Amino acid sequence: MAPILTHNSEVTASERSDNKENRIVQVKNPHLASMPEDYLYHFDLGTQTHNLQAMFGDVKFACVGGSANRMRTFAQFMHMELGLNGNGSNILDICAGTDRYSMYKAGPVLAVSHGMGAPSISIMLHELIKLLHHAKCCDVTFIRLGTSGGIGLDPGTVVITGTAVDSLLQPQFEQVVLGKVITRSTELDRELAQELLNCGKEIAEYPIIIGNTMCTQDFYEGQGRLDGALCSFSNDEKVEYLKKAYRAGVKNIEMESTVFAAMCHSCDLKAAIVCVTLLNRLDGDQITSPHEVLLEYQKRPQKIVSMFIKKQLGLLK
Amino acid sequence: MAPILTHNSEVTASERSDNKENRIVQVKNPHLASMPEDYLYHFDLGTQTHNLQAMFGDVKFACVGGSANRMRTFAQFMHMELGLNGNGSNILDICAGTDRYSMYKAGPVLAVSHGMGAPSISIMLHELIKLLHHAKCCDVTFIRLGTSGGIGLDPGTVVITGTAVDSLLQPQFEQVVLGKVITRSTELDRELAQELLNCGKEIAEYPIIIGNTMCTQDFYEGQGRLDGALCSFSNDEKVEYLKKAYRAGVKNIEMESTVFAAMCHSCDLKAAIVCVTLLNRLDGDQITSPHEVLLEYQKRPQKIVSMFIKKQLGLLK
Repeated sequence: MAPILTHNSEVTASERSDNKENRIVQVKNPHLASMPEDYLYHFDLGTQTHNLQAMFGDVKFACVGGSANRMRTFAQFMHMELGLNGNGSNILDICAGTDRYSMYKAGPVLAVSHGMGAPSISIMLHELIKLLHHAKCCDVTFIRLGTSGGIGLDPGTVVITGTAVDSLLQPQFEQVVLGKVITRSTELDRELAQELLNCGKEIAEYPIIIGNTMCTQDFYEGQGRLDGALCSFSNDEKVEYLKKAYRAGVKNIEMESTVFAAMCHSCDLKAAIVCVTLLNRLDGDQITSPHEVLLEYQKRPQKIVSMFIKKQLGLLK
Repeated sequence: MAPILTHNSEVTASERSDNKENRIVQVKNPHLASMPEDYLYHFDLGTQTHNLQAMFGDVKFACVGGSANRMRTFAQFMHMELGLNGNGSNILDICAGTDRYSMYKAGPVLAVSHGMGAPSISIMLHELIKLLHHAKCCDVTFIRLGTSGGIGLDPGTVVITGTAVDSLLQPQFEQVVLGKVITRSTELDRELAQELLNCGKEIAEYPIIIGNTMCTQDFYEGQGRLDGALCSFSNDEKVEYLKKAYRAGVKNIEMESTVFAAMCHSCDLKAAIVCVTLLNRLDGDQITSPHEVLLEYQKRPQKIVSMFIKKQLGLLK
């Protein structure tokens, strides 16, 4: 897997600028540079066992999503969309040595699965950011392509996250570090969100909006569902909660946006979240659309992100 | 997949007792009974599409673990250990219709993967508890078989959780429900923990102890690691934090114990957590043991749980 686009190893510190252009992916950890080796356990990749710069140095788009199958499909789709050589249909899992995450590469596009929930995506992002740092990748855009529950939207609507908020509707991500609660901003790149919205509007096959995304730690009680193994509230209380969120600008609910936004923001990485809604939570809790319909929904963020990437690479005007 | 052991459908409400013997798995959700259908989305199984009682009615042991490969290996191992008919090596994933979780069955033993982190295991447990409830399973013991980082223990030590504590060393699980923080007890079954310890001591091939388990929301900063993409503390501060946890009785750290204990406790399910430690966190952060060594470590909880199950089934004295 040789570099395709640029030789990022030639970018020296003096060439880096202070804005988000032409910059090697940075970690915010002073200890890392002095480590003789960095083994990325959950990827089964390491600085002493793999030539990460040769394998990943050309990556410009780090695309992540919950499901391994969906990320493989996305990598195959991007392989075709970018007109890359070879057979994209049998694209290999770069993390085949572990079943924790899956990773696929299509030219400058890396597609990585992250499982479900903030802790799961946070492990993956720690290792992905370190991976791209070790590989000296430059000007990388991070995009999460996900599924979500919508509030007051037709199923299949695509929501680009304006602000990621937690279960208490605050635009922050709380984390316990050494027994102390720290709070991080979940600010995302507004320009990038707008560019993605414009791509979606050009495709114009389905509704697409920018809205706030609520990130919860649980799919059932945590999202006000009445159909979990545990539930201690009424339908009226549920609807009141969802409507309160809606009034606060929340258009969809998922389980990874705040930590994704917070970690990218902390590392000065350009980031966006593009999720399709699988149901309207004001109409119910269960996801009952036919499998084929859900599969088509899940392709919507992929098509928008593909158009964005092709524009960035100068393959589309 | 026909029932093997008992016909639990014949257990009527009047036969149920108030203790944990001879009881159908209960949900704590008054809404569930009135739902015409329950589709377990993340398992791709449903009450209208599958005969859950025929498929799962004989399950007595719900064994869960993070990795899908590890749970398949465990199911194959149990197939052999229980002397079941047929070829255990090509055991099928019952959740093949989705890649969110994997599920394997070996007689009365169900082995289900749960991914990493509290939100991921909580989705799975909601659906697993509902599944066993719909299937009218009786007297089911829940066991999590996991990997963890040890504190002050030789790598490979098996820790059976006495008490599951959160990152602030509290024996509780906090969750936001409809915008309010609720707190649940993480109490586990002490008798079950002792029985598992006794099984481990009979095997006597590796150290095994009962100790407290700390559950964190993050693998890197959240566990005081110095090798993440983000780190803002010194080695001394990290060691101080780990030693403070150790003084509070914490022997190992993982990412699912509190919610597993809390959900099982809430549903009156007998539950235990058996984790092997892959490293001693006082010696470092990276998991660097050879692959074969780690694989052997991961078999240790499986052997202990297998002996326990065989004793319960009267296959061993």
